[in-house]
Amino acid sequence: MKLATFKDFTTITSTASLLVAQHGGRAKCLQRLVRMGLPVPRTVALSFEAVTGISAGRMPDVARLLSTFGTTPLVSVRPSSEDPDWGGPGAVLNIGMNNARHAAMIDSHGAAAANALYLRFIRTYAVQVAHLDDALFDPAADPSADSVATALRGFEAETEQPFPQNPEVQLAGVLRSMARAWFSTSARLLRQARGAPVEAGLGLVVQEMALGVGPDESGSGVMQFVNPQTGQPKITGRYLSQSQGRDALTDRAGAIYLTRDPRGPSLEQVCPEVFDQLVGYGDLCRQRLRDEMQLEFTIQAGQLSILDAVKVQRSAAASVRIVIALCQDGIISRTDALLRVAPRALSELLHPQVDPTVPGIIVTRAIAASPGAAVGTLVFSSTRAQAMAAHGETCILAKRETTPDDVRGMHAAAGILTERGGMSSHAAVIARGLGVPCVVGASELRIDRRAGTIESASGHIFREGDVITLDGSSGAVLAGAMPMLHPALDESFETFLSWADDVRDIGIRVNADTPEDAQIGHRFAADGIGLCRTEHMFFAEERLTVMREMIFADTPTDRDAALARLLPMQRTDFKRIFRIMAGKPVCIRLFDPPLHEFLPHDREGILELAEALSRPVSDVQRRIDALAEFNPMLGLRGVRLGLTLPEIYDMQARAIFEAALEVSEDGATVVPEIMIPLVSACREVEIVKGRIDAIAAAVQAERGAPVTYRLGVMVETPRAALIAGKLAAHCSFLSFGTNDLTQMTYGLSRDDAGRFMGSYVRQGVFSEDPFHVLDRDGVGELLLIGAQRGRSARPDLALSICGEHGGNSDSIAFCRDAGFDYVSCSPFRVPQARLATAQLALISAHRD
Amino acid sequence: MKLATFKDFTTITSTASLLVAQHGGRAKCLQRLVRMGLPVPRTVALSFEAVTGISAGRMPDVARLLSTFGTTPLVSVRPSSEDPDWGGPGAVLNIGMNNARHAAMIDSHGAAAANALYLRFIRTYAVQVAHLDDALFDPAADPSADSVATALRGFEAETEQPFPQNPEVQLAGVLRSMARAWFSTSARLLRQARGAPVEAGLGLVVQEMALGVGPDESGSGVMQFVNPQTGQPKITGRYLSQSQGRDALTDRAGAIYLTRDPRGPSLEQVCPEVFDQLVGYGDLCRQRLRDEMQLEFTIQAGQLSILDAVKVQRSAAASVRIVIALCQDGIISRTDALLRVAPRALSELLHPQVDPTVPGIIVTRAIAASPGAAVGTLVFSSTRAQAMAAHGETCILAKRETTPDDVRGMHAAAGILTERGGMSSHAAVIARGLGVPCVVGASELRIDRRAGTIESASGHIFREGDVITLDGSSGAVLAGAMPMLHPALDESFETFLSWADDVRDIGIRVNADTPEDAQIGHRFAADGIGLCRTEHMFFAEERLTVMREMIFADTPTDRDAALARLLPMQRTDFKRIFRIMAGKPVCIRLFDPPLHEFLPHDREGILELAEALSRPVSDVQRRIDALAEFNPMLGLRGVRLGLTLPEIYDMQARAIFEAALEVSEDGATVVPEIMIPLVSACREVEIVKGRIDAIAAAVQAERGAPVTYRLGVMVETPRAALIAGKLAAHCSFLSFGTNDLTQMTYGLSRDDAGRFMGSYVRQGVFSEDPFHVLDRDGVGELLLIGAQRGRSARPDLALSICGEHGGNSDSIAFCRDAGFDYVSCSPFRVPQARLATAQLALISAHRD
Repeated sequence: MKLATFKDFTTITSTASLLVAQHGGRAKCLQRLVRMGLPVPRTVALSFEAVTGISAGRMPDVARLLSTFGTTPLVSVRPSSEDPDWGGPGAVLNIGMNNARHAAMIDSHGAAAANALYLRFIRTYAVQVAHLDDALFDPAADPSADSVATALRGFEAETEQPFPQNPEVQLAGVLRSMARAWFSTSARLLRQARGAPVEAGLGLVVQEMALGVGPDESGSGVMQFVNPQTGQPKITGRYLSQSQGRDALTDRAGAIYLTRDPRGPSLEQVCPEVFDQLVGYGDLCRQRLRDEMQLEFTIQAGQLSILDAVKVQRSAAASVRIVIALCQDGIISRTDALLRVAPRALSELLHPQVDPTVPGIIVTRAIAASPGAAVGTLVFSSTRAQAMAAHGETCILAKRETTPDDVRGMHAAAGILTERGGMSSHAAVIARGLGVPCVVGASELRIDRRAGTIESASGHIFREGDVITLDGSSGAVLAGAMPMLHPALDESFETFLSWADDVRDIGIRVNADTPEDAQIGHRFAADGIGLCRTEHMFFAEERLTVMREMIFADTPTDRDAALARLLPMQRTDFKRIFRIMAGKPVCIRLFDPPLHEFLPHDREGILELAEALSRPVSDVQRRIDALAEFNPMLGLRGVRLGLTLPEIYDMQARAIFEAALEVSEDGATVVPEIMIPLVSACREVEIVKGRIDAIAAAVQAERGAPVTYRLGVMVETPRAALIAGKLAAHCSFLSFGTNDLTQMTYGLSRDDAGRFMGSYVRQGVFSEDPFHVLDRDGVGELLLIGAQRGRSARPDLALSICGEHGGNSDSIAFCRDAGFDYVSCSPFRVPQARLATAQLALISAHRD
Repeated sequence: MKLATFKDFTTITSTASLLVAQHGGRAKCLQRLVRMGLPVPRTVALSFEAVTGISAGRMPDVARLLSTFGTTPLVSVRPSSEDPDWGGPGAVLNIGMNNARHAAMIDSHGAAAANALYLRFIRTYAVQVAHLDDALFDPAADPSADSVATALRGFEAETEQPFPQNPEVQLAGVLRSMARAWFSTSARLLRQARGAPVEAGLGLVVQEMALGVGPDESGSGVMQFVNPQTGQPKITGRYLSQSQGRDALTDRAGAIYLTRDPRGPSLEQVCPEVFDQLVGYGDLCRQRLRDEMQLEFTIQAGQLSILDAVKVQRSAAASVRIVIALCQDGIISRTDALLRVAPRALSELLHPQVDPTVPGIIVTRAIAASPGAAVGTLVFSSTRAQAMAAHGETCILAKRETTPDDVRGMHAAAGILTERGGMSSHAAVIARGLGVPCVVGASELRIDRRAGTIESASGHIFREGDVITLDGSSGAVLAGAMPMLHPALDESFETFLSWADDVRDIGIRVNADTPEDAQIGHRFAADGIGLCRTEHMFFAEERLTVMREMIFADTPTDRDAALARLLPMQRTDFKRIFRIMAGKPVCIRLFDPPLHEFLPHDREGILELAEALSRPVSDVQRRIDALAEFNPMLGLRGVRLGLTLPEIYDMQARAIFEAALEVSEDGATVVPEIMIPLVSACREVEIVKGRIDAIAAAVQAERGAPVTYRLGVMVETPRAALIAGKLAAHCSFLSFGTNDLTQMTYGLSRDDAGRFMGSYVRQGVFSEDPFHVLDRDGVGELLLIGAQRGRSARPDLALSICGEHGGNSDSIAFCRDAGFDYVSCSPFRVPQARLATAQLALISAHRD
């Protein structure tokens, strides 16, 4: 009894016991095909356990395995992991070929076919099993007897062993090499990067060869029934006579279309019965496997075999359209449809993509910081970017790093490229907020503003005015103008997200600083604005000037005068935003950044400012110096500025109240939410609340209409989280600003972290960039402490997060579990957040 | 029955029921004097409750009160609060004087005496009760009938009321004004600033006048029995014939010495019996009141009255010597002695003081950031300060603010003055660490480095080379060289602190970066070094050069070469420190600051560096730019640098181990403690531990002697506190770096906080500067979380704090309550920490 060995492999029949978690997805899928009655050649599945055993030197009874396939079989081996995305070793075909079989096949199938099969096997075996250099074997060699002899000699010369003739030895060699390849360090890291668990196993399927070569109509092909770009029904694929595997898809001459095509012959014409059979199988697969499948088939002397079926690779747009169609055809439920699309795929939908089929010159690959692609003229300063935009030209702004001074330029640019910084650098955060494609941390490039050049690692120089392409989804920077694929935001997208809204149970708001942002958020059906940062409103040219006058005011009177000029501008902004949001809640954060962000830092800018203010340069310089800070992140900003120069908050509160009243007169009642930034002590909230209440009373008296508002605290300091119970006594909502909270919890500036974050994540010091994925242990605990203390003090306290994490599925799950009311994210992340929350609701309903 | 009124005042007799908490300290002290049989004039005490009633308009039965003193009495009213430091209204004498009494006294005591008494009363009443301008009354006016008439007319002209003649009206007026003055906002704020509780009450004592004027020997004086500067026994004070109150102490002509004195007449000669009586009373007071008292006395026609006794105001040195003497004389216990001296007073002992008796020109008063006084030549750059020091000249370094570049200059300077910054600015922190007197935040001054001038608010210009005096204990900046009082660190100081060590139950270590610091800490009997910051060792001229070579190294090999040169320097430092500490524990923090702190930032420095390194300036500039950070506090420093350039920690570990082995060979075994800074993730500790273990093994193998060490984590980020349980698995101690932890918990940079901290504390937003007094709510909670989680995971985990808070009594109390093993503080704070911990132990023993 060889029981131990017997357990190692299982012949795939409709009744065999096979599990994806034990034998992998390919084995399971093949069993389904068998059950459906498709002509699948005899197949044996090796379990994860068996393959792990092989990698450790415990080879199953190969002779017994081979005997399953009769005498002198030819077989293939293919990987079968739990998830095809986790990679795996390549297929090996024609195992069993040897000199004797070769000689026999020359007779039965002809010399060309026999030589081709043997040659293919010798090469594959040499490279994958014996680890010889692929270059030893001429891929263009004729399938002649000479070529076979040369290959065999080459193998022997390199390995000092004759090419193995025993099929059992061949199969054992293939199984061992595949098992070891799976457990190699590089494969392990690769699949873990794609989300595989550490202990992910590999199954293997050993299948009798359907040869695809030989007499009569023989060949192989691949067929699918949707357009992988659009998801629209369409039969695509290729067929190639006298071929094996996926040869038809490579650029080999002779591959033909499947359906009738004016450009050439087609399978439909050549083998109409086989074509009809394939179409029928395709339909059956869609019905029974409940997805769009790609079939790999072989014709052997006119007989059709289905070797494999895999899910069709698809674009984001296609994935949405496919699940909608499946759902509408009654094949899958809405729940299935919603769970099948990765939320991240939706963001792809919203940005143009570089056409992946067109080869281009890649200048560098760096960090993909904000998705989408852009083609534009290279510029090196924000001023230049604005000038270009004013002339209707698209440009790519390249800087070593960006600063708040650059926000206007970034808005004007079609794409942003920086030499420094990581996912959380200023450039990356702002670009995502603006929805501008962005590549950061391109450390192989030398961006020299003064020289107006970018020098690539290879020494190529790009100059201002050169056109480049930026792919913020892949991190690639390409020379010249690459062709683009543009998003089709169609009905299916809207339908799909409306299904998501039907099931989700946590609010999604948008971070929108401007009417433009609000418009996008509203178009994406956000439940309101969760974070309206008011300071970005002051970077527009004419406002910046007034802002600077305010900063340079020597007396409160002068300051009030400048603020009085800013008031109507702010009021107009708020009115536009309130109107756009049409009664949905709008949460406005009071002025936050340090004042020095509004001042120029270069000689030129200082001269201009001195002129504009009619002050000596030394005066301007002195004020700039006086406002400079060692650690601006931890300096005089947020509510600290609000208490030091209270006139700013007074003005903002008035603008908010007046705007709310004026918009309410027209229609939907506006109850603005006002949020205080950077709180670290309870008294800060009390003092600001006192002043805002006074402004509210004054506006109410002046306008004769009731002024109402809700006050909240932005929890950004660890201390605010710890004292949340006390803060809750003074406000009706807390919104966790997870960007700053992460910075302070880690003692880590997002602007400076880029220099070592990559190395930290690679070394496993941080399992993820905490600015990208919410840190559950540290920041998360502070969120829970804050939430628990806040709600204990005030059960109806509204809770939310409004940092960059707001759009991340994992962070949303955390907030949902913690009982938060909503998350707020940048405009272009709203759709994916809507889907992610729907999925969470569905999964947790399923769990319960 | 006027029961309610009766309760309001109590005649002081030896059996009356008086409590400090109800009637104040003066009333209680007067009762003690009465009990001791001293000739105290009849006195009535008004309770806190009565005075609160008066302030609210409920006047007690003044007629009944006055009747206690017989017919037509003259009385005085003095404040009697719980603590004399809390301030209070000034005494009012001679209440009851009116035209009739004046006329009568001209007969009984003579015109001069009668006029003087009446004039004094009119003036005091006018100013304190009627709130007239003091300037209305000529203080130099002769005590003539004319002067009296003028004063009475003046009063009537201003108030449109005749001067009140009814003694009851007078007394009621005085009582009411004193009560109201106590409850005024300014008095309230003042006493709260001095530590009084919000509800602090005021008692009043009404005392029959012992006139001190009139026929025979009459007069008043003040006597004490120790030298208030040194605490040595010595009768001091003055007596003035025909005077009242404390007139003898003002500069009035005619005041005489008390004891025989070659410089002039003395009370001992003039009234030997009275003198002997006073000496006897003094001795009695010392025995019975258990402290050194100052007696206020009056002689009326040869008869001695004791009006009041208050504790002698004393210098820090005197306070120590006085309690030791009291203890040695068996008057008080050691516990009492230890509890009587304020810990903060000890730090005064360690620094020279500006002689307070010599008047000087005060240029400004700003924040007293590091105690002690210094006289020196004004310089405006660290380079200049070092040059001066090299020539043996003392200088005061004045800068707008200091940076890490200035540390060497600060070390060289005798005092530091900055225009910007608060108690926690770089200048303040470093100065306290160095024990250099320092005044910061002198915002009234304009320190202009380029011009080499300081401009005062009054427009006076000080130039480089001018001599100024800095008082870091009071915050005063004075023109010229002021005379100094130098500390006498004598036996009494040692004795006293040895008493403290006998009772304290928590360790006190010293923060010592250099052998010099270690020496001071050792002299002050610290229990070890709690924080040895290794980076300061690299700022010495020749080391800085090597350090910069290391930073500019292009390859690990070049970096290793530079580090190999630094190794023997570090080893030498560590050997010296280990030798000085003679077997006491030494906790060494691995390299912490960002590398850019070691690079020059001015044109001149960059040029020099380029020359030294033989590199183009553009190269140097580029490297400096590349290392620049937006928020250095939150950047690439601490363990992040340790993981990025691991060779630095390798070198330091080797230097520590080699030094420990070499010193151990000579005597006491050294088990170094190695601390990792800025940890925010567990894996950081694992990785560093792995490398240090490897170095330890290597050194052990090379030297053939066992290498042992203890590893610890410096908890500076909120996240480290939260994950303390996990960290404890990898180390044997946690030391909380409360400076950085406070910065991150509040999101507040200590270098930038100075600009609003003052206003924040004034507005009560923060009750105290959290960099000065540990924030119990936020930072404190993180300490408790960290301590609890750490100890749960590892019960023998050693816990400590090593931030600036280590020397603060309140913070020490917090750490003691939390079960910490020790606190670590700057060298000059060690004595006060030793006393503070002793007091905590005594108080808690008393409580239990």
